[in-house]
Amino acid sequence: MEYKDQQLTEEKVFKDPVHRYIHVRDRVIWDLIAAPEFQRLRRVKQLGTTNLTFHGAEHSRFNHSLGVYEIVRRIMMNFQDRVNWDNEDRLLCLCAALLHDLGHGPFSHSFEKVFKLDHEKFTQRIILEDTTVNQILNKVSPNFAQKVADVIAKTYSDKLVVSLISSQIDADRMDYLQRDAYFTGVSYGHFDMERILRVMRPMDDQVVIKSTGMHAVEDYIMSRYQMYWQVYFHPVTRSAEVILSKIFQRAKYLYENDSYTFKLKPTHFISFFSGTVDLQDYLKIDEMIVYYYFQLWQEENDEILADLCERFINRRLFKYVEYNPDPQINAGMELYQLFKEAGINPDYYLVVDSSSDLPYDFYRPGEEEERLPIHLLMPDGGLKELSRHSDIVESISGKKRTDHKLYFPKDRIQEIKDESLKQRIVDILYR
Amino acid sequence: MEYKDQQLTEEKVFKDPVHRYIHVRDRVIWDLIAAPEFQRLRRVKQLGTTNLTFHGAEHSRFNHSLGVYEIVRRIMMNFQDRVNWDNEDRLLCLCAALLHDLGHGPFSHSFEKVFKLDHEKFTQRIILEDTTVNQILNKVSPNFAQKVADVIAKTYSDKLVVSLISSQIDADRMDYLQRDAYFTGVSYGHFDMERILRVMRPMDDQVVIKSTGMHAVEDYIMSRYQMYWQVYFHPVTRSAEVILSKIFQRAKYLYENDSYTFKLKPTHFISFFSGTVDLQDYLKIDEMIVYYYFQLWQEENDEILADLCERFINRRLFKYVEYNPDPQINAGMELYQLFKEAGINPDYYLVVDSSSDLPYDFYRPGEEEERLPIHLLMPDGGLKELSRHSDIVESISGKKRTDHKLYFPKDRIQEIKDESLKQRIVDILYR
Amino acid sequence: MEYKDQQLTEEKVFKDPVHRYIHVRDRVIWDLIAAPEFQRLRRVKQLGTTNLTFHGAEHSRFNHSLGVYEIVRRIMMNFQDRVNWDNEDRLLCLCAALLHDLGHGPFSHSFEKVFKLDHEKFTQRIILEDTTVNQILNKVSPNFAQKVADVIAKTYSDKLVVSLISSQIDADRMDYLQRDAYFTGVSYGHFDMERILRVMRPMDDQVVIKSTGMHAVEDYIMSRYQMYWQVYFHPVTRSAEVILSKIFQRAKYLYENDSYTFKLKPTHFISFFSGTVDLQDYLKIDEMIVYYYFQLWQEENDEILADLCERFINRRLFKYVEYNPDPQINAGMELYQLFKEAGINPDYYLVVDSSSDLPYDFYRPGEEEERLPIHLLMPDGGLKELSRHSDIVESISGKKRTDHKLYFPKDRIQEIKDESLKQRIVDILYR
Amino acid sequence: MEYKDQQLTEEKVFKDPVHRYIHVRDRVIWDLIAAPEFQRLRRVKQLGTTNLTFHGAEHSRFNHSLGVYEIVRRIMMNFQDRVNWDNEDRLLCLCAALLHDLGHGPFSHSFEKVFKLDHEKFTQRIILEDTTVNQILNKVSPNFAQKVADVIAKTYSDKLVVSLISSQIDADRMDYLQRDAYFTGVSYGHFDMERILRVMRPMDDQVVIKSTGMHAVEDYIMSRYQMYWQVYFHPVTRSAEVILSKIFQRAKYLYENDSYTFKLKPTHFISFFSGTVDLQDYLKIDEMIVYYYFQLWQEENDEILADLCERFINRRLFKYVEYNPDPQINAGMELYQLFKEAGINPDYYLVVDSSSDLPYDFYRPGEEEERLPIHLLMPDGGLKELSRHSDIVESISGKKRTDHKLYFPKDRIQEIKDESLKQRIVDILYR
Repeated sequence: MEYKDQQLTEEKVFKDPVHRYIHVRDRVIWDLIAAPEFQRLRRVKQLGTTNLTFHGAEHSRFNHSLGVYEIVRRIMMNFQDRVNWDNEDRLLCLCAALLHDLGHGPFSHSFEKVFKLDHEKFTQRIILEDTTVNQILNKVSPNFAQKVADVIAKTYSDKLVVSLISSQIDADRMDYLQRDAYFTGVSYGHFDMERILRVMRPMDDQVVIKSTGMHAVEDYIMSRYQMYWQVYFHPVTRSAEVILSKIFQRAKYLYENDSYTFKLKPTHFISFFSGTVDLQDYLKIDEMIVYYYFQLWQEENDEILADLCERFINRRLFKYVEYNPDPQINAGMELYQLFKEAGINPDYYLVVDSSSDLPYDFYRPGEEEERLPIHLLMPDGGLKELSRHSDIVESISGKKRTDHKLYFPKDRIQEIKDESLKQRIVDILYR
Repeated sequence: MEYKDQQLTEEKVFKDPVHRYIHVRDRVIWDLIAAPEFQRLRRVKQLGTTNLTFHGAEHSRFNHSLGVYEIVRRIMMNFQDRVNWDNEDRLLCLCAALLHDLGHGPFSHSFEKVFKLDHEKFTQRIILEDTTVNQILNKVSPNFAQKVADVIAKTYSDKLVVSLISSQIDADRMDYLQRDAYFTGVSYGHFDMERILRVMRPMDDQVVIKSTGMHAVEDYIMSRYQMYWQVYFHPVTRSAEVILSKIFQRAKYLYENDSYTFKLKPTHFISFFSGTVDLQDYLKIDEMIVYYYFQLWQEENDEILADLCERFINRRLFKYVEYNPDPQINAGMELYQLFKEAGINPDYYLVVDSSSDLPYDFYRPGEEEERLPIHLLMPDGGLKELSRHSDIVESISGKKRTDHKLYFPKDRIQEIKDESLKQRIVDILYR
Repeated sequence: MEYKDQQLTEEKVFKDPVHRYIHVRDRVIWDLIAAPEFQRLRRVKQLGTTNLTFHGAEHSRFNHSLGVYEIVRRIMMNFQDRVNWDNEDRLLCLCAALLHDLGHGPFSHSFEKVFKLDHEKFTQRIILEDTTVNQILNKVSPNFAQKVADVIAKTYSDKLVVSLISSQIDADRMDYLQRDAYFTGVSYGHFDMERILRVMRPMDDQVVIKSTGMHAVEDYIMSRYQMYWQVYFHPVTRSAEVILSKIFQRAKYLYENDSYTFKLKPTHFISFFSGTVDLQDYLKIDEMIVYYYFQLWQEENDEILADLCERFINRRLFKYVEYNPDPQINAGMELYQLFKEAGINPDYYLVVDSSSDLPYDFYRPGEEEERLPIHLLMPDGGLKELSRHSDIVESISGKKRTDHKLYFPKDRIQEIKDESLKQRIVDILYR
Repeated sequence: MEYKDQQLTEEKVFKDPVHRYIHVRDRVIWDLIAAPEFQRLRRVKQLGTTNLTFHGAEHSRFNHSLGVYEIVRRIMMNFQDRVNWDNEDRLLCLCAALLHDLGHGPFSHSFEKVFKLDHEKFTQRIILEDTTVNQILNKVSPNFAQKVADVIAKTYSDKLVVSLISSQIDADRMDYLQRDAYFTGVSYGHFDMERILRVMRPMDDQVVIKSTGMHAVEDYIMSRYQMYWQVYFHPVTRSAEVILSKIFQRAKYLYENDSYTFKLKPTHFISFFSGTVDLQDYLKIDEMIVYYYFQLWQEENDEILADLCERFINRRLFKYVEYNPDPQINAGMELYQLFKEAGINPDYYLVVDSSSDLPYDFYRPGEEEERLPIHLLMPDGGLKELSRHSDIVESISGKKRTDHKLYFPKDRIQEIKDESLKQRIVDILYR
């Protein structure tokens, strides 16, 4: 029997707190899960530093990837009488779901920002270059790896396949909302996924939702909104992210500064500092490795690097105040000067962080990060864009909400000896 | 106001998936949670290698420690009208609950076994020696740290206090059963804790259970039984533990062998290898550090060390068969020889692992690991040991169940070139 | 000890699926629960005919009343250090919570509409007139019954007390949303009540919400919105309500029609038909009694009454189409004539039903059914009306949504012999 | 298309709190659910008087019947590749599951005992005699109704079909344990049904369980044990049952006593009193009807009947003490005399009630109510009876536990004027 048609002699299951069980029958899927590049996702947390705010959130991207696979598997079962896909098409959906986050590095957001990397590119490379995952995909058919990569890159010709893992209501989002809610323990993030799966219909190049299921979709959109503001953009988590970025930034700075010598040579980081990362370097770095360096760097001679690492490891985070980005109003420049006067390097200890979210939006061509809008399938067979039919969604549609905060180490300010200087800083911060 | 009586201006809460919220009012507790030695527990998983079997089980000992604190806090609220404790007594219970696992190292079980360590001793040392935790406890009262250490060591004079965190139905067990069930996602591990808390009564030197709550206690005992065999002793988890032990054993062997030079000097491990661990060494090692070494050791020259590390990191675990420890029946010695012949070092690749559990037992003086039995408070005011009143508990009481398995790398056996030798090994293993 | 201060020797609990346990310590509460007028609530379903749509929704008003009591009990515990209430004040809140729905009759909505009754008036009368409940309240203090009645009528002087059970975020609503979600099994209706309780603050004459809890309140408002449209206004439930109203209307009509003699004399209904209901009559009628009559009336000689009762008992409900109330557009009058021609009495078999909901609204003086708005307590100590701070709430605030449907027996139309007449009716209904 | 092969144009679902959704595709099933005999189950509570103890337990047999159907539907999906059944065989399983409780009358246990009825016989009759259900089944095939009746009667030739709804681990039990736990709110009753369904295998004439699922089955057996003693045999529920039986007994006695005339003629009961019940009489009586009579009988002239009805309606139940059935020890006869002396009719006011349960038993031929034992399918393909493989089950296997209680109205005893007589009664009861 061809490799792509091989079934396990007995279905295997993974116990999963969110979907109860994750079912695997295809040999290809089983082999991919066992591949080292996929196992590596066990060492990358799904929510980066969120566990410093919500202590339950220690789940890995390995978890989430299995979950997305499982949701797509269930959608495929519902679709089997409605689409004309052969077994390779089916496998394509499952593999793309399983592997869509394969390129995530440690603490993705901060890491990528400082080192100018893009995890999506690494997902492509892991799938297409010399890896165990690539070997497995090649056994399915000669251009299968490329197809999987295309689906994940959203460039695949059959947009219906793409929309399963990349639309405003895709398996990716449905999994992470529920999973992150479960592990953090918050009461948001619940919606009736079983009903949504039942009202999904494949239609030409997209997945549409029968209009009888509109309320379940509204509930999903609201869950998403709440999770963003209550969990993903939680100000304490962002404080940890700020410190993380500053550690990477400082270490890079020191590396580039010839006069500084690290006590511990940052072997794993060198190609990142120098912008010469190859695939093997990338695969070798995970959150365990990063934590190792941070722990050791607490004893570096550079006070800023040592201090920031100690803060991160011992969770002595920065405090924050609301910040108005309008330069007329805010006193950013003034604070910058005052911090300098106080001997607190503002490049590392005075940080503006902004978060913004667009809870739901219909398609606006040319915009970055566009996701396909949600279309309802009306009783008369026509399609209607969700926000035209739902008051709730209409009311939040296209409203980008942005939140700016100013982060700083309150303890350092309290230690300022010059009382008048200290008072001026405090007055500006808390006025 | 004295330090021990200081309250936070506003109650703080941690969102917890198991207890919904963990409430902190005492400044002492707040400060202890922020101490580096307590934050370190974030980097030690509650269930060691179990996440390789149940992917959700990535929760840390930090989680569990907060949970035990919260349960004791609730018990104290129920007890407040029934015991004559002052505020320091109350704090003592809370601190002992919070800190009871403070000395756990990475992958406790295997780590301690190979390096002959005892995490309980380190818990004592962290509380009593020069640490942030110790400084905080000292501010409560001069001998407070010692008291906390005594409660955890079960040597404290007021046995009622001891029994809160160390009996057959203590806050420790009630938290971990529920927490481990939640994060693994298994359906065992649930029992009606709210009811158990409500029927607990302080009585002289122990906590007893009103007999009307007996069924809730039965349910708890059965949960415990199921969790042990379904989760804690899962054969796949034990396979990972076997490999872990063998890695530590091999690394120690190589270190002691003068002719071998590590590519990466095992700095963090040296005092463990040489048996000269001091408190600072111990506090520096956590699971992040261990993972770092394992990843690097995959490239060591020693084939056994490199292979075992690669297996652990990529989850290429050993397979197992049932094993009868009776030397008359088992063919352990024969297999040992055959493995040698096949060039597979049996000291590292042929391992017997045994697990055993005593679901519930009444007191048997002199036995190791004795925990106080559960006493029911009968309507007539008398006490009755649980197994004398419950058929279910009686039936499993004192029955130690042991399970032996033989672990080995199936892939290596399949690669044996000498077909007849391979066949002999296979025949013995699977006869 | 005075009656009002008497405590049960041991706290009693009721197992409750929503709040886990309902705790009773006060003898007054215990006695009220045992009173026949309160036990009667076991025979009135919380959601009337909703169980014909959601089969799990068979829970009684007894359930809900205990739940509201329990929520107020928990609020009181949080408030105890923040308000200056004596024990009688505390009991007043608890009693008002427990008894607020005491006057509900069978299938409240339809029953009250047809017989022009008001359950709130009967709540008052049961509390104030000659009943066991009244006797118990009188033992607390001479004017205690009146106070309880005033709180429920929202006329009590201390508006803080009133707002606990009657505001836009009161114990009544918090219980029913969660309870109705639990018993129907829908995934809406969940919100973080524990958090809302923790951020509630008594302030002058109202309960306000600390602004840090705003998101939990948003979630509650959205739950309410979804429960209304997904459960409370479900078109199938409304179909059953339509039939119910028509049964009451027809029975009353027949009673008033001297030429008709009931096979079964409608003893329990006579005072309702004649508008001379006294308290004893009212207390004697419950849903069991109504069902008894409906079952017997299936065999009445009046075809309409018998048919409607058979439909209700056997769940042969009316079908529906959307209905535009604009007389320019709808063909109501035309259908009315056509039904007559077809021999289907349109007064009973052609019914427009409208539902409308105002998800959240701030105070508009003079409006019927006004509930107090929700005020947030800002960090600076000021108050802010919720919709001015929450985008989500602002977007749905004050937006009354109304839905009109036309109900009719599809089976009767299909049986029309005159094919052309039948076709005309079908064309209008489904055009 | 033949009736039996007709599918609904779109799958219909019922929202169910226990199984989330109940799915219906077959026209036959849809029609059966709409039949008046099946709708009647809405008016019979699943747990009779248990709602007087656990107020949430107001769910109907309609609920449970849908649940059993749904479980069998899921089992059939798992079995479809493993058995050789045609569509009629499949429908047979589904119909038998749906209809297995069709003959339950109001408050089954007490009602049947007093009137010497057997609900299983009525299930047969409703299926086989002149009913809507029978007409529907006849349309499937000429002997289909008989087949369904045979499956329910356990006399059908294919024992595999029988075992789906009638064995020690059948769909009936799996539904009611979970459902009753959900509605009462107790924490027992949970087990991993999804796993049990996955390890069920059809094998010759029975369903066996793959041995890898043994622990899930153990958990199920323990759930069953706990539900029996914590819920089904709860002493307060039994008190209500005792009163119920005595009401029926007294009413029958009065009916048979020519000198007594009922104020309200007990029309619905007459054929029950006289032992001449026909199917139409039986179908007309439900719990609504019974409640109606009880409410009216509160005003009967017979003091015993009126008192017992008032107690039942207002939940003024009997109290109880433990009772030793050994005539040497108990003082039953003495109490009987003393009650008589005190003017409290012991035939109605002094009642021994016994409950007993056999948590699990293997087959013992000739015993009443035997259910097939559970067989494990071992890795070697052999079968092993569960209790031979599970320590837990072995320990409770075949152990019949019986509990005897003596019920009486404590209030009546307290009202006895003769202090010495009162004291003698109290002394015996509470010695």
